[in-house]
Amino acid sequence: MSVTAAKGFTAAGIAAGIKENGNPDLALVVNNGPRRAAAGVFTSNRVKAAPVLWSEQVLKSGQVSAVVLNSGGANACTGPQGFQDTHATAEKTAEVLGRGAIEVAVCSTGLIGVPLPMDKVLGGVETAAASLSEHGGEKAAIAIKTTDTVHKTSVVSGEAGWTVGGMAKGAGMLAPGLATMLVVLTTDADLDDATLDRALRAATKVTFDRVDSDGCMSTNDTVLLLASGASGVTPGYEEFAEAVRQVCADLGRQLIGDAEGASKDIRVEVVNAASEEDAVEVGRSIARNNLLKCAIHGEDPNWGRVLSAIGTTKAAFEPDQLNVAINGVWVCKNGSVGEDRDLVDMRYREVHIVADLAAGAETATIWTNDLTADYVHENSAYSS
Amino acid sequence: MSVTAAKGFTAAGIAAGIKENGNPDLALVVNNGPRRAAAGVFTSNRVKAAPVLWSEQVLKSGQVSAVVLNSGGANACTGPQGFQDTHATAEKTAEVLGRGAIEVAVCSTGLIGVPLPMDKVLGGVETAAASLSEHGGEKAAIAIKTTDTVHKTSVVSGEAGWTVGGMAKGAGMLAPGLATMLVVLTTDADLDDATLDRALRAATKVTFDRVDSDGCMSTNDTVLLLASGASGVTPGYEEFAEAVRQVCADLGRQLIGDAEGASKDIRVEVVNAASEEDAVEVGRSIARNNLLKCAIHGEDPNWGRVLSAIGTTKAAFEPDQLNVAINGVWVCKNGSVGEDRDLVDMRYREVHIVADLAAGAETATIWTNDLTADYVHENSAYSS
Repeated sequence: MSVTAAKGFTAAGIAAGIKENGNPDLALVVNNGPRRAAAGVFTSNRVKAAPVLWSEQVLKSGQVSAVVLNSGGANACTGPQGFQDTHATAEKTAEVLGRGAIEVAVCSTGLIGVPLPMDKVLGGVETAAASLSEHGGEKAAIAIKTTDTVHKTSVVSGEAGWTVGGMAKGAGMLAPGLATMLVVLTTDADLDDATLDRALRAATKVTFDRVDSDGCMSTNDTVLLLASGASGVTPGYEEFAEAVRQVCADLGRQLIGDAEGASKDIRVEVVNAASEEDAVEVGRSIARNNLLKCAIHGEDPNWGRVLSAIGTTKAAFEPDQLNVAINGVWVCKNGSVGEDRDLVDMRYREVHIVADLAAGAETATIWTNDLTADYVHENSAYSS
Repeated sequence: MSVTAAKGFTAAGIAAGIKENGNPDLALVVNNGPRRAAAGVFTSNRVKAAPVLWSEQVLKSGQVSAVVLNSGGANACTGPQGFQDTHATAEKTAEVLGRGAIEVAVCSTGLIGVPLPMDKVLGGVETAAASLSEHGGEKAAIAIKTTDTVHKTSVVSGEAGWTVGGMAKGAGMLAPGLATMLVVLTTDADLDDATLDRALRAATKVTFDRVDSDGCMSTNDTVLLLASGASGVTPGYEEFAEAVRQVCADLGRQLIGDAEGASKDIRVEVVNAASEEDAVEVGRSIARNNLLKCAIHGEDPNWGRVLSAIGTTKAAFEPDQLNVAINGVWVCKNGSVGEDRDLVDMRYREVHIVADLAAGAETATIWTNDLTADYVHENSAYSS
């Protein structure tokens, strides 16, 4: 399934030897047409990896024939040589596929500041091209994993016979820019690049942009949407955009569920905000509060930490009108002690925090996870 | 020493029974004059504890006769009753000292959202008043501890016979607003409240405001500076301001050194910034990056995480001109791989990161600490 659920796509995932442990580390996704329309969103981190700088150029044409992705190295902060390496990877992929290099997007993920072993990357491109298959989507999804414990895929189909499918990787350095991870979405809907761009930006704004695992924005975030037109169906915009949003939301939820070291998935829902921007600002402030994330880990409904996080924002609210519910219990009412905190049941993995700003009618949901000793271990015991 | 190092002050620290473990939890600092000039800075968190709301009013007169401080409860998010409790504490203190309540500043620290046991607080005020002493500074410093493992005091004296002394508490929820903890400074210099205010704001801006332990801003932060005039000496402004800055810097350094769970104290020095604001923004972004803080805990000179943090800021810089040194080794040059990272010696507690923006001549230093499993444990195993 994954990126090959939609007609017109082949994919592969192989072990090129980039990772020292021999795990799969190179994926190839090819759009066999008839259309090769595409859209992409990229990290807003100003320190961008070489593949991001390259792929931003590729996407300007609105045409992508193939995406080559590697794990085992981010090719970020690698200087002019890093950009040449990305270019050489695109050239090699174009050569084996008989396409132009400027139609090949490149994504990399892994440790920052280490050059890629280019002999292995280029050899891997040949191996991957030789194993391209209409059933290769899952192998591709596996090959882009880094600290991910599971691979992430999602598929939604329209009644008229078209499909949106995708794969994602990401478990740490996971916070919103324009996007927050490597994601490739494919569709066989017959749509032009402008429509893809509109649907993709609308979807990422309310899905990946509202995932905030650890507040750390990557240098390599990329979300691509490729359309082959192979279904011959041109769905209505709203129906298509909703399918893209569903796939993005599903993949985003899977990313949070696999966040490094996490034991709780936390849904921060801000309601009755004066504006959507206020709701997002407040939600993000709560989601990034280390003390709260520790408390949730300890199954402690510490609503004081929610209020102290809200208080650091510029959103419209009055401190004595704030209400907070944790797993359905309004532990804070009118900025003060509310229902008995002992009523809060936090045994389950998903935790739902509602912050009521009592300042309007807008809402937003940010997903995050708890902060654990396992997260510290995973990010201190070795470079990643 | 502490707040009684300067002439004209008495202090006490006692166990009022607010803390269930019986540890000291109530402190009293009294200015016996002849002057009772004062200045204060408070948290910029919009969710402010009752004692902050009260003390802000007290400080408007520029006159403070006494400060009563309790640990064991923040009296934050406690509604109208919380404010009445603060008021009653000030009234009681004024009564036993024979002063007006509007001259009594109140500070509280501890768990948010729990009412104070007022019978114990008011009884404690009487006990503390009965034990006031010119040697009580250390006991007062001990009584304001929460998760602090050590009490923090500092003293600087001018050659002409005047002194600035102080005490501080703070170990978590430690990030800049206008101030980041409870601090009481005293001086016997003969200065008016406007001069105190100017010197205090200048000092906190470059000391406490640049301490960022865990990115979490408290609802209770208060820094007070009280002058008794008892030395009979009026020092020059620059000399006095420098003494205040030194005491604040010393106490701020002690706060970082005792941060919850920390094993490394990290000095983030941003150099060659286009403006001081840029330098502070970049320093704070680096200091708040959980992934970097984990890496430092693991003694891993992971400069890629420094660059990814710089990239999230609006500061002036070009990605390919950034340089980063860790403990003197320039591991990143021109935005790419620099000197051998194996040369970096990270065995010691203090770690020095220099981020060179190559964009100007301004500089700023932010202090933070590493992120550890002990921090997670301390903030998840029980409410604090």
